[in-house]
This record gives sequence, C-alpha cells and structure tokens, in this order.
Amino acid sequence: MLSKTQLGFVRSLHQKKFRQMYGKFLVEGDKLVRELLTSQFKVDAIYKLYGSNYEVRNRATEVITVNEMELKKLSTHENPNQVIAVAQIPASDIGHQTSDIKDELAIVCDNLSDPGNAGTIIRTADWFGVGKVFFSENSVDIYNPKVVSSAKGSLFRVKCHYVDLKNLFEANRHLKAYGTFMSGENIYDTSLDKSGLIVIGNEANGISNELLPFITDRLTIPQFGKAESLNAAVAAGIVMGEFRRR
Amino acid sequence: MLSKTQLGFVRSLHQKKFRQMYGKFLVEGDKLVRELLTSQFKVDAIYKLYGSNYEVRNRATEVITVNEMELKKLSTHENPNQVIAVAQIPASDIGHQTSDIKDELAIVCDNLSDPGNAGTIIRTADWFGVGKVFFSENSVDIYNPKVVSSAKGSLFRVKCHYVDLKNLFEANRHLKAYGTFMSGENIYDTSLDKSGLIVIGNEANGISNELLPFITDRLTIPQFGKAESLNAAVAAGIVMGEFRRR
Repeated sequence: MLSKTQLGFVRSLHQKKFRQMYGKFLVEGDKLVRELLTSQFKVDAIYKLYGSNYEVRNRATEVITVNEMELKKLSTHENPNQVIAVAQIPASDIGHQTSDIKDELAIVCDNLSDPGNAGTIIRTADWFGVGKVFFSENSVDIYNPKVVSSAKGSLFRVKCHYVDLKNLFEANRHLKAYGTFMSGENIYDTSLDKSGLIVIGNEANGISNELLPFITDRLTIPQFGKAESLNAAVAAGIVMGEFRRR
Repeated sequence: MLSKTQLGFVRSLHQKKFRQMYGKFLVEGDKLVRELLTSQFKVDAIYKLYGSNYEVRNRATEVITVNEMELKKLSTHENPNQVIAVAQIPASDIGHQTSDIKDELAIVCDNLSDPGNAGTIIRTADWFGVGKVFFSENSVDIYNPKVVSSAKGSLFRVKCHYVDLKNLFEANRHLKAYGTFMSGENIYDTSLDKSGLIVIGNEANGISNELLPFITDRLTIPQFGKAESLNAAVAAGIVMGEFRRR
C-alpha cells in the first residue's frame, strides 16, 4: 500500500532540484533495477508490482508492493515496467577531487546538455573500459531519468563526477587533453597516448572558449559527406573506439 | 492569421497515421527550415513568427504569419523556435525499388525503433558520405518530429527508403552484408570491402532471425568493459568510421 508521503517523495525526484536536495534518484524498470540491486549503489526503496520478485541484499532497502495505477503515478514513463527504485546519489559524484586520474583514459564532458547523449556516453565508456566520466557543473543532471535509462546500467559501474573542469585540467597536466574539432589532426593518422582526457563539447557550441587553452591535441574525425557535425555521443564513441583500436 | 483548418491539419501531422495518409511531415525550427528551403524537398507551407524572414523559392509554398501562441499550438515542442514547415514526403521513400545500389556503402536498419537513433544514424551516414539508408517497414517512422530533429538536416540529403529487407538482400547479392554481433570477427582486424550493406539491428533484439542468413560478414566491435552492448547509433557510427578509415 502506497502512502501519500511516499508518492509525493518519489514524484518529487522527477525534478532535479529535489534529487539534489535529497541526494536520491530513481531507477525504473525490471532490468535496470536488477542491475542496481547487484551494484555498489545504496537503494532506499523499491516499489514493485504484486507478483514480481527482487532479491534485496540490504536490509535497509524497503520493499513496497504497489498496483499498476500506483506504479504509473510513481513513474516518469507512460507504461512503467514492473518496478521503480529510489537509490542514493554517491557522495563522491559531486565536488569530487580532481587529481586522482592515473594512467588511464577518462572522458570529460563540457556543458553537455542532452540527457540521451550523457547516458549514451556513459554506456559507451563502460563498453570501452573507460572508468571515469567527468561533467562540468553546467552539464545535464546525470540522475535525470532519461540519462539513467539511456545509460543502461553503466551508470552503476562507470564513476561519474561533477567538477570544475579548469581545476580538473590544472590538476592533470601530466595527461594530454584530446578534443574533437572541425579542423584538427586526422584522428586516424595522429599519435594517441594510451591515457589521457577525451573532451566532449556542448552539442551546439562545442568545447567552450575558456577551456580551449587546456586542449593539447586537436583531433578531427574525417568528414566525407555534408553533415555539419556528428552527434556528440557518436563522436565520443568513434574517438574511444580509435583509442582502443591502437 | 491562422485558420482552424490549418491548425487542425498541422496538428494532425504530429501523428504517424496522418503523415502517412497525407504524405506530409513537419520541419521545425529556424535552422532546419532554412536547410529544408534550400533542399530538393517540396514545401507546402511555412508558418513563421511576425518579423522573421525566409526565402521561399517555390511559389507554391504558402507563407503564413502567426503569433507566438499560434506557433506553440502548431508545434510539437514546448518552446518552438520561430517557424514550422509542412513538407512533402518524397514518393520514392516508400516501396522503393531495391535493386539500384551500385558500388557504394549503404545502411540497412532492421526494426530500428528509437527515433533519436534513426535520426542520428541518418546524420552520421551523411557525415561519412553514405548516401542511402534503408529501413524495414516495421522501423520507426523517419518523419516523426523527433527523427527529423535529430537528423539535423541530413534527412534532406541522405536518401531514405522503407523496403522489404529480404527483397533488398536478394536483389543485392553482389554486395556483402555486414552485421555487428557480440561474437564475430574483430572489426579492426578483418577485411572490409569499399562497398556493401551495413546492417543495424533492433535496439533490444539485434538483427532479426529471418535476416541472419543474408549476413555475409559478422563483425564485433571489441568490448573492453562491462556494458552489455553499444547504443545502435554509436555502433553504426563506429562501423561507418572504420569503413572510411581504410
């Protein structure tokens, strides 16, 4: 039985300001909640349909059974799939220390604004074994339900951090910072380190002017046709793939 | 001044069944409408805000000036950007002959369901100079406003066709058909022709069983991490990039 307080609280998490206020976010759907429950993330509650079963390892996780109409009210989807969980945003994700990047590849998103792109970049990083994705503080909220959904569980594995990107670059001058531009070195011909920062710019405006001085290597994905640009997540995928191909 | 008939007609085009019935679709926003007006597409009407100017080359294109409230009613967006156009779906896009693929790369989408993916694949094809994208008849409607928006004008340049994919493969046995799978030849190590069909499967289920016999080359994008799969548009981008790198 769902209380009004529970309903109001879960629905508040549809909005960024309440996610930030409470440090919680929603995970929706059977497959994703199962992945969440086997992850390191702390889960406060799951709201599940009658008849569905989830193995909850932590006793602190409350399990509430709801009917279909209640689930619909809790969910951000028109047709929710069986279950919705309230999880805790890891404390490390905000205002994280920027100096702990070792010899590895990491992704840096500068003012990324589209939720689908953010989720897809996290998912692609996970595929290519890139363990950290940094976001500028003005980037989309990665605990937005659309990001959570498009990241397909990779959000529970890849470390995501909101940081001041200038600080990040300054603290990591030992690493190259690779950005993609309309004119730059052909990515297929240029030398790439095994480690470094791959910088993804804003969908409409690219990498912001104030960060340009930190970019050490300007890369271009060669253009054969007439599109003005590539989608940010596709470009990120091609760049990560090329680093891993070498 | 907007008439009720105009409003009703434009709003009907928010829905697939009316787009198909009338053979028309909507193009929204200043930048995209400007690209549309310089393309080969036939434009029936543009609804623009007072004070904005568009160069309409075809006398048959009606220009209607509307106020902000009217534009909002016409649009699929919360905050429409200046203009919305009614364009004609090219007749060739439906039930197209499948046998006119020459020595070129073409994309084949099998039951692709996400509008953002469809638009992004069309945009990426345009970037890499891939001139044709085929869709199975059960794929998402590419004249869906979300596809139009995410294709960023590439929809006006890349030829898109809905076809029976079996017929397509049968008519093009001279070409290799490349599909991506969890297990297959490492795409970076295997030989790739300069021409061929790149087959993109459904987001959840991959390439459908009945089409598997037509796949001549099974490719894999090597996995370094733990994500179960790549997003369909990212995978398509990496594959197209790899064909063009060679």
